[in-house]
Amino acid sequence: MKYQKIWEKAEKIIPGGNGLLSKRPKRFLISGWPIYFKKAKGIYLWTLDDKKLIDFSIMGIGTAILGYSNNKIDTKVKLAIDNGINTTLNSIEEYQLAKEILKYDKFARQVKFAKGGGEAMSMAIRIARSNSKKYKVVFSGYHGWHDWYISANLANTKNLNNHLLKNLKPIGVPKNLRNSIIPLKFNDHNQLKNIFKKNKDAGILVIEGARDSYPSKNFVREINKLKIKNKVIVIVDEITSGWRETLGGIYKKVGLDPDIVVYGKALGNGYPISAVVGKKSIMKISNQTFISSTAWTERIGFVAALETIKFMRKNNVPKIIKARGKKIIDGWKLTAQKYNLKIKTNDIYSMPKFSFDYFNNNEKLHTLFTKLMLEKGYLSTNYMFVTYSHSIKEINNYLLICDQVFKNISKILNKPKEISSIKSRRMIY
Amino acid sequence: MKYQKIWEKAEKIIPGGNGLLSKRPKRFLISGWPIYFKKAKGIYLWTLDDKKLIDFSIMGIGTAILGYSNNKIDTKVKLAIDNGINTTLNSIEEYQLAKEILKYDKFARQVKFAKGGGEAMSMAIRIARSNSKKYKVVFSGYHGWHDWYISANLANTKNLNNHLLKNLKPIGVPKNLRNSIIPLKFNDHNQLKNIFKKNKDAGILVIEGARDSYPSKNFVREINKLKIKNKVIVIVDEITSGWRETLGGIYKKVGLDPDIVVYGKALGNGYPISAVVGKKSIMKISNQTFISSTAWTERIGFVAALETIKFMRKNNVPKIIKARGKKIIDGWKLTAQKYNLKIKTNDIYSMPKFSFDYFNNNEKLHTLFTKLMLEKGYLSTNYMFVTYSHSIKEINNYLLICDQVFKNISKILNKPKEISSIKSRRMIY
Repeated sequence: MKYQKIWEKAEKIIPGGNGLLSKRPKRFLISGWPIYFKKAKGIYLWTLDDKKLIDFSIMGIGTAILGYSNNKIDTKVKLAIDNGINTTLNSIEEYQLAKEILKYDKFARQVKFAKGGGEAMSMAIRIARSNSKKYKVVFSGYHGWHDWYISANLANTKNLNNHLLKNLKPIGVPKNLRNSIIPLKFNDHNQLKNIFKKNKDAGILVIEGARDSYPSKNFVREINKLKIKNKVIVIVDEITSGWRETLGGIYKKVGLDPDIVVYGKALGNGYPISAVVGKKSIMKISNQTFISSTAWTERIGFVAALETIKFMRKNNVPKIIKARGKKIIDGWKLTAQKYNLKIKTNDIYSMPKFSFDYFNNNEKLHTLFTKLMLEKGYLSTNYMFVTYSHSIKEINNYLLICDQVFKNISKILNKPKEISSIKSRRMIY
Repeated sequence: MKYQKIWEKAEKIIPGGNGLLSKRPKRFLISGWPIYFKKAKGIYLWTLDDKKLIDFSIMGIGTAILGYSNNKIDTKVKLAIDNGINTTLNSIEEYQLAKEILKYDKFARQVKFAKGGGEAMSMAIRIARSNSKKYKVVFSGYHGWHDWYISANLANTKNLNNHLLKNLKPIGVPKNLRNSIIPLKFNDHNQLKNIFKKNKDAGILVIEGARDSYPSKNFVREINKLKIKNKVIVIVDEITSGWRETLGGIYKKVGLDPDIVVYGKALGNGYPISAVVGKKSIMKISNQTFISSTAWTERIGFVAALETIKFMRKNNVPKIIKARGKKIIDGWKLTAQKYNLKIKTNDIYSMPKFSFDYFNNNEKLHTLFTKLMLEKGYLSTNYMFVTYSHSIKEINNYLLICDQVFKNISKILNKPKEISSIKSRRMIY
């Protein structure tokens, strides 16, 4: 196939084939995943060979929260392009976007922008460390590729296992950073308490707004206690979770009191823009250390984010996305029940996920699901990002196809040979 | 003034007022710099109050190498926007751009992309350190805001003085990184030799392609020797210097044999895109460590860079830029001579620079120059980035105005009171 050959060539000149693990084809199918797009609109994608597909999968890893190529956002961006994007002078939209975001993050008074999520997290860590004499970071979840984070695996190459990649070797990360960061199991409030009790030089906590579950009440209570008792600086990484379930971050819904919140992904509906939002007492020091980049002042990200927030507010996007995500999760559950399939689902409606529950066969079954869905014209795997473009009608159609595919899988489950012949997707490579 | 009030408000909610030191108004004038743009085309800018200005200054810090809002590039970008920018599948242009860049960097076989220059340098350092048991970096020049670089000032807060900012306190940078990076004076081949002799754990050298002067023959010879003798991995940061004087980097013109070259800024004519380009033996390991970001796979940067390179090749842009930059430097020299003004100039034609040579009054005079040029409708300071849009006609006009302004300055030089009343620009704040 045309795209497969191009990908093989790409892998030779780009290590990994592209710049993002999540878009590597073998994470979906060992062969047959369409790899490249030619065109995208709403939830529809056209492949290089002009095949139309419907995207019920990662939707640009959650960036396209309104759907691909939203007219409203794109019109504003194209107007900005006509008027210049990166000049000697500043974009007024940088200020406007800061002002706009602060409307939703009442705890915060200052903002700094970047383009990507990973670099925004690096910035947040620098700012937090500038404010604390205790530079050690306690973390849960995924927070990017930078040294401060990957150094977790210097002490033990299993430290990131439940947060990122299994047994990742932290090659190229200075060994001096060993023990500068400590892993924490999400929602384990006892472990959280103990870590800060044992590590008197730990002054910063980094968690995700939500990944597979919301922060629990006990977890939140312990975090808020540590803030007061130990003056721990709390960073909530809402790069993936932000703007999906509320205007702003999940932190608001669970009673967290962050010092810094970091947004990315959905904020610009696909146009790269990220934001470090924080209390003035914490943020103001960032002008004393050196944090600066030319790319950050380019205009498109600001313009796109301003228009995306406006669209989300006007159309009540988070509420709609949650309702539709619930519909999808409920649909999966019912269909699985109907065919006696054992699945587990998560409870984050905006980012639905299911897992087959068949011991060593799970990854084979997830792969089979993707393969059968693709045959029906869907980009689909066992997790997805719901967007504003996933209409009720399309969700109903999708669930009808899921019905056929789950039925098919339930039949195949009785054929061990057929199962064992499936080549499992590779989540890491 | 309207823009001044907006900036003051911006400074309250964005530490520093924006995301980039180089665009902060006080680096040009303590008051009166127009700060924000409304529109930009070619070398013309319109301020918020619709005043038209001609840009003979930093041109988006060198990003707008073809001039602002180039039709050819923008048309391709807008077409890409209509067809989707960040989807579940990959952009074919990521592969195409890698292939294109490798045509110009014959030493290299692999490429990884990012958006900003600073993050690309972080990536280059991670890759270099992954290849060397000697993790210590020897550097010259400016390479961004990340920990690996700012840690230079942990051992001595003067280490970055000749490379970045004076007396910068490395707050928020882990102290464990102390002595992980060693400053080197550009073109000091003896110091270079000695540093590697003394530091047996130094395995990486980072220099800029060019800043105020080209790498000297002796410097290049010593670097190439160290590559063979000590197996030093050489990274050439061409983020600022790349694509201005040749298609690719300055390194080609001076006989350097880099392992990694990093591009940014001009590569996308203002659209954020950066590239880490290197030998296969060095780059291939980068897939074993974890380097990945969603923002990097967004399509606009690839599309813009492909079209920018095409335009530069077709129109012989580097040659034209150099010739026009020479005309500007020659013009400054002649005019200064005419009015008996003492100035020094650099010899990098694509990035002309002059400095007044009046002891403690230099910064006051640079500020005065900017003030007087602005009164004539020019954004101008004592350094600039030449672009393809700086036509011969516009350069002639500019030099006529410089003539008037230099004449004026030569008169004011005899009035010490008037000189001392000038409030100097602040390069750092």
